[in-house]
Amino acid sequence: MGILGLTGYAGQELVRRLVRHPHLRLVAAQSSGRTGAGARRLGEALPEFAAGAANAPVDVGLEIVPGAPEAMLAARPDVVFLCVPHEPALEWVPALLAAPRPPRVIDLSGAFRFSDAALFEHWYGVPHSAPQLLAEAVYGWPEKNRALLPAARLVSNPGCYATAANTALWPLAQSGFLGAGAVICDAKSGASGAGRALRDDLHFVELAGNCSAYGLFQHRHTPEIAHHSGLPLARLTFTPHLLPASRGILATTYVPLAPGVTAEQVTESYRQAYAEAWFTRVTGPRLPALHGVAHTNYCDVGWKIAPDGRQLIAVTALDNLVKGAAGQALENCNLMFGFSPAAGLL
Amino acid sequence: MGILGLTGYAGQELVRRLVRHPHLRLVAAQSSGRTGAGARRLGEALPEFAAGAANAPVDVGLEIVPGAPEAMLAARPDVVFLCVPHEPALEWVPALLAAPRPPRVIDLSGAFRFSDAALFEHWYGVPHSAPQLLAEAVYGWPEKNRALLPAARLVSNPGCYATAANTALWPLAQSGFLGAGAVICDAKSGASGAGRALRDDLHFVELAGNCSAYGLFQHRHTPEIAHHSGLPLARLTFTPHLLPASRGILATTYVPLAPGVTAEQVTESYRQAYAEAWFTRVTGPRLPALHGVAHTNYCDVGWKIAPDGRQLIAVTALDNLVKGAAGQALENCNLMFGFSPAAGLL
Amino acid sequence: MGILGLTGYAGQELVRRLVRHPHLRLVAAQSSGRTGAGARRLGEALPEFAAGAANAPVDVGLEIVPGAPEAMLAARPDVVFLCVPHEPALEWVPALLAAPRPPRVIDLSGAFRFSDAALFEHWYGVPHSAPQLLAEAVYGWPEKNRALLPAARLVSNPGCYATAANTALWPLAQSGFLGAGAVICDAKSGASGAGRALRDDLHFVELAGNCSAYGLFQHRHTPEIAHHSGLPLARLTFTPHLLPASRGILATTYVPLAPGVTAEQVTESYRQAYAEAWFTRVTGPRLPALHGVAHTNYCDVGWKIAPDGRQLIAVTALDNLVKGAAGQALENCNLMFGFSPAAGLL
Amino acid sequence: MGILGLTGYAGQELVRRLVRHPHLRLVAAQSSGRTGAGARRLGEALPEFAAGAANAPVDVGLEIVPGAPEAMLAARPDVVFLCVPHEPALEWVPALLAAPRPPRVIDLSGAFRFSDAALFEHWYGVPHSAPQLLAEAVYGWPEKNRALLPAARLVSNPGCYATAANTALWPLAQSGFLGAGAVICDAKSGASGAGRALRDDLHFVELAGNCSAYGLFQHRHTPEIAHHSGLPLARLTFTPHLLPASRGILATTYVPLAPGVTAEQVTESYRQAYAEAWFTRVTGPRLPALHGVAHTNYCDVGWKIAPDGRQLIAVTALDNLVKGAAGQALENCNLMFGFSPAAGLL
Repeated sequence: MGILGLTGYAGQELVRRLVRHPHLRLVAAQSSGRTGAGARRLGEALPEFAAGAANAPVDVGLEIVPGAPEAMLAARPDVVFLCVPHEPALEWVPALLAAPRPPRVIDLSGAFRFSDAALFEHWYGVPHSAPQLLAEAVYGWPEKNRALLPAARLVSNPGCYATAANTALWPLAQSGFLGAGAVICDAKSGASGAGRALRDDLHFVELAGNCSAYGLFQHRHTPEIAHHSGLPLARLTFTPHLLPASRGILATTYVPLAPGVTAEQVTESYRQAYAEAWFTRVTGPRLPALHGVAHTNYCDVGWKIAPDGRQLIAVTALDNLVKGAAGQALENCNLMFGFSPAAGLL
Repeated sequence: MGILGLTGYAGQELVRRLVRHPHLRLVAAQSSGRTGAGARRLGEALPEFAAGAANAPVDVGLEIVPGAPEAMLAARPDVVFLCVPHEPALEWVPALLAAPRPPRVIDLSGAFRFSDAALFEHWYGVPHSAPQLLAEAVYGWPEKNRALLPAARLVSNPGCYATAANTALWPLAQSGFLGAGAVICDAKSGASGAGRALRDDLHFVELAGNCSAYGLFQHRHTPEIAHHSGLPLARLTFTPHLLPASRGILATTYVPLAPGVTAEQVTESYRQAYAEAWFTRVTGPRLPALHGVAHTNYCDVGWKIAPDGRQLIAVTALDNLVKGAAGQALENCNLMFGFSPAAGLL
Repeated sequence: MGILGLTGYAGQELVRRLVRHPHLRLVAAQSSGRTGAGARRLGEALPEFAAGAANAPVDVGLEIVPGAPEAMLAARPDVVFLCVPHEPALEWVPALLAAPRPPRVIDLSGAFRFSDAALFEHWYGVPHSAPQLLAEAVYGWPEKNRALLPAARLVSNPGCYATAANTALWPLAQSGFLGAGAVICDAKSGASGAGRALRDDLHFVELAGNCSAYGLFQHRHTPEIAHHSGLPLARLTFTPHLLPASRGILATTYVPLAPGVTAEQVTESYRQAYAEAWFTRVTGPRLPALHGVAHTNYCDVGWKIAPDGRQLIAVTALDNLVKGAAGQALENCNLMFGFSPAAGLL
Repeated sequence: MGILGLTGYAGQELVRRLVRHPHLRLVAAQSSGRTGAGARRLGEALPEFAAGAANAPVDVGLEIVPGAPEAMLAARPDVVFLCVPHEPALEWVPALLAAPRPPRVIDLSGAFRFSDAALFEHWYGVPHSAPQLLAEAVYGWPEKNRALLPAARLVSNPGCYATAANTALWPLAQSGFLGAGAVICDAKSGASGAGRALRDDLHFVELAGNCSAYGLFQHRHTPEIAHHSGLPLARLTFTPHLLPASRGILATTYVPLAPGVTAEQVTESYRQAYAEAWFTRVTGPRLPALHGVAHTNYCDVGWKIAPDGRQLIAVTALDNLVKGAAGQALENCNLMFGFSPAAGLL
């Protein structure tokens, strides 16, 4: 396998998981970012995998090269994980897939999450340079699209917020349980969701003890949530917040229930939707918290219904770097290649 | 002045402010809690005011006595701050006010926040043993009730969440700007809001990096918000969350706007409502964060309106121990006695 | 295998590692503590292993029983990990080893770390009730005692601080590089080192942003460091500090160097001492930090020598719950049973 | 008064204190840094002082100008605080003092802390461009140099680490209590000590839960500690560490005691040294922690002596932005101008 974007937080988390995976070996790593600048070997870039131990679980001497898709292809990986923003992903994905013996591609960016190029262009503000691939890209949320993965050539890994919100919304929308009125998802995320790039608001002194909302009415995961849950975009309000924590997303979703929907029906809807999911846990009235999912690939969902039965509040929790990024990517990889679904993920 | 509940977080914060106040002197302090157990002098109970410096700004030798209202009354304070839960407050307030020369009382608990004893009993689950005082108790939110404070004998200091939510809601409700549909307040609070009592979920290892929702459809500040903002209780959903931070509340309030309400009207409503407020700052489209108000008595309110004009999201921020508790209590005290409104509060 | 003390932080960490271990299965778990009180099944006690997912990696229904060694023995574990303080360990170890077909025992407490009962009694303040076992107990620091583990019946797992300090000191002491004068180890530990029991100083609000020293001249790991590094106790000063972090120990050790010791000799001493260690990494002049070892079983050691060559400062870092407790216990178990040294530890 | 470096952490803290000061008014503020870039008014640069409240305690409209000393002088401040690094301070101090009616200057940088230009040049690695001012610069540690402040034209405010270390060392050195052997100061600092400039290691995700040592044998406060405590530089080892906290320094200082020095003599030495200090508190065997001094101008010092009487460990705590920077600068200002020593500092 190959990784583009090794030194970002998603790339790092992926390497952490690889060392536990029985069937994957890292053969190519590229990094063009400023983080870990100067590092030329994997062991220098990722302190957790520093050289020195008698038996390092990963090739700490693997050369990290900035560069073009050709260099990656030269190592002949079976699968390439793109842990970079949508702009480089738009360049790399077509290039990789156009190779004579193309690797399969798992793209963690937002570049291929919509089937509609216009929707992408509206929310991301840039033209989509590879619209011909949108139809075949599989949205890699195994809870919904498990069956499509074995044959997928290009998997678009979901956004972290979108996974958290849709875990709450998709079963209800699918069951027709949504009543009239706005659906509101108020999400709280740890700072690694914003990446390793330096920003004033991510300085330790600025974020420790702080909390703020951002991206009101504008966050790019809003249409992604609607697109993949089946909720009309106009009915959804999504508001992310920055938490003084390193990792994790807690999403509190307020859903008007259709008249007559019972608590039993809601429970049944969730249980059935996730009966086959390895990594989504239905906790019912016991509400999840970040600590129950930190450093794991689980997404937990719990909920309460108002005494008058007209509103449901679902709380979902996941680790943005694992189920929200690298872990889910690896889960997708496992399902694409027929490995054990949990390989490398426990 | 006297303080009941010296060693809790609100009591501590009050002492911190007193040392900067030109007109108040602490003459009696009582503490029945387990925190600071064994401490017999103010300087032992509050590390910030430890003896040792040449010139301590507060009487570090002041004796802390567990005990009855009589001991407090013996010191003849002009005003007593009750920094204790509602149960002891229900005992102390009538006892203090029944003294021959009663002190004025500022109660930081929830005991006297409703004019209706039945509402209290429903949400607090205990009988109200002093209903005769409910009519005269002034709800000490200066933004709304400034004019009532100079004559008040008993001031009921607002709940921390209620102040944050009502700063967002009251102007809109008063102006008739609320449209149909649910009003949702999703609030995030630092851990000091839960007090100093030891709890599993407040252990550092459990809370650092964690976040969780609690009290869904059940939190006692829900009816307080409705009662004092003018919003019908049935329309309000209030959900508090526990943040991995020591202090501060960030409340994100989702409000359906009535048809035709303009952005200018909203701005004007907020500006007018708080034109005379010393400590509420209207920041408009610049959304507040906890750091802008931490360790201050300010409550900041900012907001955005959806592109289709049908929803407003207001974000309010305050320090739960200052504007949400001890600071607002001191602000009320200043207004009751005619001191400068900001005395001790900068 | 069996675990006594399932719900403490070391017990939890052990379960987290077991799910990745190919050869170990949990057959008995006991917990007498107050944490997780009321939980009767593993899935209730440890939120990370909550029931709900289609395929839980551990038997979430395993019953947790408070109780006596007999109940543990009834499940016939091959090995029992004691994740409890020294008092219960002193009761359990002899009872387990006296069984007809005794399990092997890995004791994470301080009960069997000295060969000398009097030394234990002096520093722990209680009589040693099983002195007959001290001679056979193997001090489970694989870096030093790897060869003794395959035959060990009772392994005494090292203290977290002792592992951090001895990683710095043992090679130097063994090589005769210590000069005259005091050796000072100034260690900083995250809060999980103090356990899950509730304490005022571990309340989130008290510890966030705080730092303090404790146990000056009195900490029980002081004689353990001396005993196993070969340093005379009288020359060692050990001072632990509490960090506002959940996990990890950073130890800064100040060592006077004997005249004539060269930088090359020091490097060679460290490299040779840890040449066969799977989990100690010699980083040389690149000083380790907590993040490089958090959630891993690595202990990193780096150092600098003063320009005049008379003093060496070594910095060691480990995760107190992994290499400092459960991870090292599992490493010992792997070596005792001939499993791959890293099984469950990556 | 004027401030150069308004938007750095020391500048911010100074403004926070000014609003409580009865005699000082900010008439000029300059900022050349990238933080708060774009802000043109004080109220935009410092969120705590945002415009909006009815009665702001500071002139939120004060224009912030990047620029030259002339602009500062044009506002005719009586005193200028330089909250910038040593390079700009070396330019500004001579320029300000050369004005026809020069303001008094309090320099928070390291530019004028040594009487010896060569010492500065060796440790700071740049030539000293104003050596003629070194002789008259008063080292602004009021505990030692209180008497020199009223006449001082130029005050060099001490380094944060130096104040923490010297609070422990100066009384002992002055009393002749230091025995043979190395004196080791192991200091731990919150992140604001490193300033607001963005750095990889100050990113929230990198620092939360982390701890590391830095600057071994090289930190510039080493000679400052020796210079002002009277300890020979060759005997001092100073090692700073970065804590996952926003503010505060905890210094643990290991001192060999001269033979025959008694515990009573040590206590008397500390008590006498700080008998007149407003802001240094001698806590004796009760060891200080960061929380006891956070957001205050206090420096606390406690200690323990080894059972054999040969070593003393002193623990000192202060807030690096207050007693370690802006607070001590204001304390110096108060003493220079004859204001109450605690004005603005409670």
